[in-house]
Amino acid sequence: MTISALQKARADYQPKLPKSLKGAVKIVDGAATESVADQEDIQKLFPNTYGMPLLTFEEGAESANIPAVNVGVILSGGQAPGGHNVISGIFDGIKKLNPDSKLYGFLGGPGGLVDHEYKEITADFLEAYRNTGGFDIIGSGRTKLEEEAQFDKGLEVLKKLDIKALVIIGGDDSNTNACVLAEYYAAKKAGVQVVGCPKTIDGDLKNEMIETSFGFDTAVKVYSELIGNIQRDANSAKKYWHFIKLMGRSASHIGLEAALQTQPNITLISEEVAEKKQTLQEIVDSMAQVIAKRAANGNNFGVALIPEGLVEFVPEMKKLIAELNDLLAEGSAIEQEFKMMKKSHRLEWLATQLSPESAAVFQSLPTGIANQLTLDRDPHGNVQVSLIETEKLLGEMVKTKLADMKESGDFKGKFGTQYHFFGYEGRCAAPSNFDADYCYSLGFTASVLIGAGKTGYMSSVRNTTAPADQWIAGGVPITQMMNMEKRHGHMKPVIQKALVELDGAPFKYFAENRDKWAIETSYLYPGPIQYWGPTEVCDRTTVTLQLEQAK
Amino acid sequence: MTISALQKARADYQPKLPKSLKGAVKIVDGAATESVADQEDIQKLFPNTYGMPLLTFEEGAESANIPAVNVGVILSGGQAPGGHNVISGIFDGIKKLNPDSKLYGFLGGPGGLVDHEYKEITADFLEAYRNTGGFDIIGSGRTKLEEEAQFDKGLEVLKKLDIKALVIIGGDDSNTNACVLAEYYAAKKAGVQVVGCPKTIDGDLKNEMIETSFGFDTAVKVYSELIGNIQRDANSAKKYWHFIKLMGRSASHIGLEAALQTQPNITLISEEVAEKKQTLQEIVDSMAQVIAKRAANGNNFGVALIPEGLVEFVPEMKKLIAELNDLLAEGSAIEQEFKMMKKSHRLEWLATQLSPESAAVFQSLPTGIANQLTLDRDPHGNVQVSLIETEKLLGEMVKTKLADMKESGDFKGKFGTQYHFFGYEGRCAAPSNFDADYCYSLGFTASVLIGAGKTGYMSSVRNTTAPADQWIAGGVPITQMMNMEKRHGHMKPVIQKALVELDGAPFKYFAENRDKWAIETSYLYPGPIQYWGPTEVCDRTTVTLQLEQAK
Repeated sequence: MTISALQKARADYQPKLPKSLKGAVKIVDGAATESVADQEDIQKLFPNTYGMPLLTFEEGAESANIPAVNVGVILSGGQAPGGHNVISGIFDGIKKLNPDSKLYGFLGGPGGLVDHEYKEITADFLEAYRNTGGFDIIGSGRTKLEEEAQFDKGLEVLKKLDIKALVIIGGDDSNTNACVLAEYYAAKKAGVQVVGCPKTIDGDLKNEMIETSFGFDTAVKVYSELIGNIQRDANSAKKYWHFIKLMGRSASHIGLEAALQTQPNITLISEEVAEKKQTLQEIVDSMAQVIAKRAANGNNFGVALIPEGLVEFVPEMKKLIAELNDLLAEGSAIEQEFKMMKKSHRLEWLATQLSPESAAVFQSLPTGIANQLTLDRDPHGNVQVSLIETEKLLGEMVKTKLADMKESGDFKGKFGTQYHFFGYEGRCAAPSNFDADYCYSLGFTASVLIGAGKTGYMSSVRNTTAPADQWIAGGVPITQMMNMEKRHGHMKPVIQKALVELDGAPFKYFAENRDKWAIETSYLYPGPIQYWGPTEVCDRTTVTLQLEQAK
Repeated sequence: MTISALQKARADYQPKLPKSLKGAVKIVDGAATESVADQEDIQKLFPNTYGMPLLTFEEGAESANIPAVNVGVILSGGQAPGGHNVISGIFDGIKKLNPDSKLYGFLGGPGGLVDHEYKEITADFLEAYRNTGGFDIIGSGRTKLEEEAQFDKGLEVLKKLDIKALVIIGGDDSNTNACVLAEYYAAKKAGVQVVGCPKTIDGDLKNEMIETSFGFDTAVKVYSELIGNIQRDANSAKKYWHFIKLMGRSASHIGLEAALQTQPNITLISEEVAEKKQTLQEIVDSMAQVIAKRAANGNNFGVALIPEGLVEFVPEMKKLIAELNDLLAEGSAIEQEFKMMKKSHRLEWLATQLSPESAAVFQSLPTGIANQLTLDRDPHGNVQVSLIETEKLLGEMVKTKLADMKESGDFKGKFGTQYHFFGYEGRCAAPSNFDADYCYSLGFTASVLIGAGKTGYMSSVRNTTAPADQWIAGGVPITQMMNMEKRHGHMKPVIQKALVELDGAPFKYFAENRDKWAIETSYLYPGPIQYWGPTEVCDRTTVTLQLEQAK
């Protein structure tokens, strides 16, 4: 395998570990835990894994004498930088427990467990993947482990390989399912522990014990590098507004952190839009105000950040999308009529089928976007929100608004746009030092939990704005993060998704500064991720973490 | 001004200079030069600046005693990483000649000279811009200096500020105009020297004496970082083909270099398409072949690089675009009729107005693209080639082709696409070590040319794959790079644009390896530009330069 110069040099990087994980580890039990809400329901569903204590690791006096253990690992869901380092941490950790321990990777995500597709991860094989991005070492997938039939099928291969513990690396849903699996195997006395590791680029798996999920640091740094470069271009050419859509379906952590790193003129935060019940037109109007004010200062350029999931947080759009999903459901009479109709009449006719409010919103949309809403539907007939070009929707509506303002004399500038969407650019970047260290520590922590016979726990590494050797490693019972939520019509136990808190320090800092950033040109240019060089460059954490931990 | 951690650390970087520029400089005259073609015509047009010798700098014995000199500098055209370092090099160079020398920047490009808008660049002011990206220090612009009235207007402000030399930092056109200006001022005995510096991200200002134009190194590294990340994602998720359009209107140097750095499955090179007179359908067919072969191996994913200017190199598309430009020229009868017509009838009718061959091509295009060709026209009614979404055009046509192949049993896989376009992401990146050093050396070289009283020269820094202290600095008469070409109906002296040479070492290496890269997954992941760390990572040059100089 030919590799790049950077890969070659980076392969030698030895990720930093918390002090407590470097030698013998002493496990300190904390108080018993409760779920964040719905305690009674959760306890009933998880009789074997509910209420377990928090665990904190400290430097120990002597290493335990632990028999060799076979461990399985699964990568679940979308890629995030650092997944390979979690696996390296597990590998080195279980080899430290006992050099005869073995690690098996299930291929292509949770489906690999069910379909019995696996590969032993040996030291030689692992070598090429240390400190690299991607999930290509064993692949990932989106199969959900939810059915007992899957659990039983998985147990067969676990037994066959004599695997005593399974590590599931994934987001909130995957960790919820990891806990369901832990409970099932515990109830069955199957002799298989299940441990989770917190991954989401979106940053929405986050709470007191899980300060950040891995990959967020690297991905936002990649996006911020690009936003900074584009800002420098905007400020050099002085002729375009760049509308940049960023990953983040359900939470705007990425947009917020990118804004803190780059200080663009406009950043929309979905959670605020929902909280203020803003209409699309109100959002457009406020953007147009900023553009007009900058134009009045001779600055016909700027940068606006837009979270991918925005439209679902705009109450009127959410309603419209829900109505369209109902109306155009696969095989419905209206869908049939719609399909038969001449293209040029479709939109007009469809508006007559909507509620008056939704019809008004629908008719206010640019034609291209209205078409996207009606044509690009998934196999169930649902609007594919991820395909909506929100950045162009806003750009076109702002253009219309500015044309009106020009007529009334409220806008005297020029408005030209460039559009960008950053998602895939960051998901498989090689991990930053932070993510390389954090992921390796999470994996190593998982191995300690395995060695101690724990199940239903998630790896936890805290105090993450301190230097790595002061990080606090331990385990959190997954049930502690759960509450009951309605999913597909049924109440289910799930890990609470962490949205941007409007009274949290990161948002407050942003809100205090955004008016200045809007009008003045206060751009920051963070530049590309650096692996060598001054520690304040190479080991800096996200601004979100810094502000949260400065509280 | 708040700046990022990287900017802070990077401000201290002292760019490396060739040995010959570190102390006293001795200027060695080479042989007299001739233009690359049309010698008689060029000589007639440039009686004062034709035939001058090549200049090479060597280490000198003693510094010349040179009176203080006021110098003006202009940034011309699109942004390229390193412009600020050219200015730093000029500044430090003329201060070394005489500490009382002054540097003035003309604001917003060549227009600043004509409109007398300028700013003195002092040491304090310059400090914040060293080693940074962008052209924001004085701004840039696309005004062309072509008219004698402009030259005379410029001379007024040059006289007023007692400026004896002007440095124009720009691409082939800007340097052509720099030479015309040099000749005009020389003929007028105006006492103003004009010196050029070679900038283009596209890499098409290149010849024996100008090994590379600045900014190319950094920009391609940024694009390659992103392509590598996307490749890692493609190889992890294994479900998408990513079609990535890259900057490069008239030459595919960027696409070729990015391919050499990342080894994607498909890379289209415009020059080859033109040479082979390929049709759009032939290009699509060959892409579909690769996709089908990969699918047969179970690999329903891949990455394809597409140069921005591709369609203009496809002979049939070039013809179609020319016909559309004629037909839909502003105010033409056909344009009037077209505008009045119902949207749903327009395309069909327009096809009847085209030549049969062009009509066939037009009708083979996806509707969205046909609309782009007829609607998104510039103020002169011309098709805006830069707005054509070539990546989507090819994606849609490939999809159609694969559907046919599926019916005939020649394709058994899945085909899902993601589209990207990288341009603005790299134009204003902070310069790589190479570009930081190269630009600073180019600027410093300009100052030596100024000190020696030279005019009509371009800064030249060669031997660029060697360590910087072995680089060879000097000056090339701009007339040496010229030939006569037809522009807007008239023969004009211009610097020959350097396209990708199909018999050059970089293309040949690519052509030898592309079949392997197509079918196997041989991705390289170059990662982000590094400023500190191992020299083989931080100071590596482009593969293009390495292959060219290994000849």
